[in-house]
Amino acid sequence: MKFDYLKDLLKERFLDEKIDRLQYAYDATQKIYLPDCVVLPKTTQEVSRILSFANQNKVPVVAKGCASGFSGGALNVAGGIALSMELMNNILEIDLDNLIATVEPGVVNYDLQLALKPHGLFFPPDPSSWKFSSIGGNIAENAGGPKAVKYGVTKDWVLGLEVVLADGSIINVGSKNVKDVAGYNLAQLFIGSEGTLCVITKALLKLHPLAQASQTMQATFNDMELAAKTVSDIIKNKIIPSSLEFVDHQAILTVENSMKAGLPTDADAILIIEVEGSVFQIKEDLEKIEQICIKNGARVKIAHSIEEEESIWLARRSISPTLKRIADGKLNEDIVVPRSKIAEMIKKTQEIAKKYSVMIVNFGHAGDGNIHTNIMYNTKDKDEEEMAFKAMDEVFNECLKLGGSISGEHGIGITKQDYLERQVGKRTVELYKQIKLTFDPNNILNPHKMKL
Amino acid sequence: MKFDYLKDLLKERFLDEKIDRLQYAYDATQKIYLPDCVVLPKTTQEVSRILSFANQNKVPVVAKGCASGFSGGALNVAGGIALSMELMNNILEIDLDNLIATVEPGVVNYDLQLALKPHGLFFPPDPSSWKFSSIGGNIAENAGGPKAVKYGVTKDWVLGLEVVLADGSIINVGSKNVKDVAGYNLAQLFIGSEGTLCVITKALLKLHPLAQASQTMQATFNDMELAAKTVSDIIKNKIIPSSLEFVDHQAILTVENSMKAGLPTDADAILIIEVEGSVFQIKEDLEKIEQICIKNGARVKIAHSIEEEESIWLARRSISPTLKRIADGKLNEDIVVPRSKIAEMIKKTQEIAKKYSVMIVNFGHAGDGNIHTNIMYNTKDKDEEEMAFKAMDEVFNECLKLGGSISGEHGIGITKQDYLERQVGKRTVELYKQIKLTFDPNNILNPHKMKL
Repeated sequence: MKFDYLKDLLKERFLDEKIDRLQYAYDATQKIYLPDCVVLPKTTQEVSRILSFANQNKVPVVAKGCASGFSGGALNVAGGIALSMELMNNILEIDLDNLIATVEPGVVNYDLQLALKPHGLFFPPDPSSWKFSSIGGNIAENAGGPKAVKYGVTKDWVLGLEVVLADGSIINVGSKNVKDVAGYNLAQLFIGSEGTLCVITKALLKLHPLAQASQTMQATFNDMELAAKTVSDIIKNKIIPSSLEFVDHQAILTVENSMKAGLPTDADAILIIEVEGSVFQIKEDLEKIEQICIKNGARVKIAHSIEEEESIWLARRSISPTLKRIADGKLNEDIVVPRSKIAEMIKKTQEIAKKYSVMIVNFGHAGDGNIHTNIMYNTKDKDEEEMAFKAMDEVFNECLKLGGSISGEHGIGITKQDYLERQVGKRTVELYKQIKLTFDPNNILNPHKMKL
Repeated sequence: MKFDYLKDLLKERFLDEKIDRLQYAYDATQKIYLPDCVVLPKTTQEVSRILSFANQNKVPVVAKGCASGFSGGALNVAGGIALSMELMNNILEIDLDNLIATVEPGVVNYDLQLALKPHGLFFPPDPSSWKFSSIGGNIAENAGGPKAVKYGVTKDWVLGLEVVLADGSIINVGSKNVKDVAGYNLAQLFIGSEGTLCVITKALLKLHPLAQASQTMQATFNDMELAAKTVSDIIKNKIIPSSLEFVDHQAILTVENSMKAGLPTDADAILIIEVEGSVFQIKEDLEKIEQICIKNGARVKIAHSIEEEESIWLARRSISPTLKRIADGKLNEDIVVPRSKIAEMIKKTQEIAKKYSVMIVNFGHAGDGNIHTNIMYNTKDKDEEEMAFKAMDEVFNECLKLGGSISGEHGIGITKQDYLERQVGKRTVELYKQIKLTFDPNNILNPHKMKL
């Protein structure tokens, strides 16, 4: 049988019953692609043998973390082997002298945070999926999160990787050294490469001390443009909040209709602003931010207790779940524009929504211009579905015109691959293909993600 | 004539007199390699035409900034064209809404800082050469600096690049968007690639608000190990200073013998610690650091005026210039070890110095484990020179045993290329070569730096 070698190697950690394969067939896109088998390695050596076998037999291999991705990056679109990293989930070291954690890729982001907290440390990348996404997946997609405005994204916090290449060879790239300029920076090339260049088996992560204190405020605006101006004004005033999120009018309505959270349904936009630092620092920053907000016509509410803070964040966190109640179809995009262009971009999405008669709900990370643009449609209505896709196409075009990117956090995967060249250009896509073939000449690693 | 096309294209900005070529023949390594001609483009289009020509005629091209490099990265070791970027030195935009500067590669780091200061901003990478090194060179070498312990290195502050490829095509990688996960991260691959993959013609740089205040202290130790322990203790206590520099006993002696700066010649090590932040924050941090230093047996001096601060930094800054007075030969290395291994590494260098009867002077960036290990020798004494190189070889070995890197800031260039494989391994060097040939099939870009 085709997979006998893997069965012998992994015993009960090799699965090929349909019921098992189904469990590894999906991600958060709700698309389903059945792998031919599932393997659950426990060591780098096992991963090496699996890839060696796959490479010799030209079988596709798709590495998976927790399958929380929004772009289909972890789907076995060409069948083959689903390589689940879930059993390689050990935190190998928390090095307090050097503020570095060494982890296996299957560690869930939030579990790492829990292990770090008693040491007064954290790993800054905090994708909204942090309770159910793995560090390996975070690295493969170069995940962001609300705190990216202050701390940057995953790539800024990965110092080194152990990876297995398509031919089964194991290499280490980067090191525990923050400064290391020996050779090309392959670690950074691998981060965000969506499992198409190698399989990550270990990661060296830079840690950061937890802030002494933090505080959250909510600012409500009758005018999206003034909300966007406020975002720019805060940054211009040299304050970098730890989160700077926004919720647009349509998103406010959606949440309020679903759960009566007491949100101002007449508002055009809400900003949720969190500052972190010493007790003195956050007081100073919050006062300045409050003045800026009021100057721009906002009503401001500062949280003075954990309960008040929770209630402010509730609105932001409830958007995604409540969206499902409006329509069963959702094109969940995460475009980015330079932060000064947010108001312009939101206005464009409103025009596009009108043009195609679809509902577009915007929310996201205003501080770094990252907008979750959700185009809602009824999947049973084929005309509406077609309009939704046309609207998405136009959203991407407008975003690129403003110097933006078609993806800030979710990755290209299968959902955005037709739009990649539009952003980066033909010559660059050619280079991508050549790089892909340099690392994976038989195209076994997550094939059909980087189109060849 | 061979270069007629370039002469026609660039007129008086094409140079081939020997006296002109000599001016572009050296860098800070004091090695000399004469280019066949020098070109001074003013636009990206000109760079594109120059590379196109060079690629068709298989002539080497070496891009140069200010030639301040310590590893020979900008030397025309195979002759060919010296491509000086000095006339492409415009700051094209300082975007205050997005905190991003767009610059040409020839802009001198310090000139950028001066232009940013009135806006209350700075570009964190601060190599010691900042007054005479260009942003293009900083990017090509992924330069660090004293502030790297808090802010990271050049790669952490470059968002996007416009580059010209070997065949003359112009591509843009990255964007003004802090979050951008579309495609492979070519910008990060190019940073630190020492001009071997492309020529940088424009850079988008992330800026940071200047700190409200800063303060410097000096801590003097009778025991290097306690100084190193202090470094770890500071970080363990969740304080990240903006600089955390050290000077070893031999370096103290060298400075004191040359300039009588009043340094304690009986001390085994000095730490120079700078903290940045709000006035409240730095007071709090300094108090904690002082306690840690005293607990570890140090004598502490806190600067209370700019003059006192200057006098503390003078010692650190005087090391390099005074070293020249000890011996005319210097192997100027910049090894890195995880910061917890600094004391062990320094001890090893002392043993190696004794073994080979050479003088080794150590100083550098303790906060990120980056040690400038200077092996001094008399160039006229061939035996001493041989011993110096043997000592260097052993320093690299010991550094790698401790999980270090052979270069933290200076790059591989020609001075460390024989040691690269020892650090990264044979398989990884193979990948480097394949990547080099993917981008530059005729090996015209800075040939002989990445050995093929």
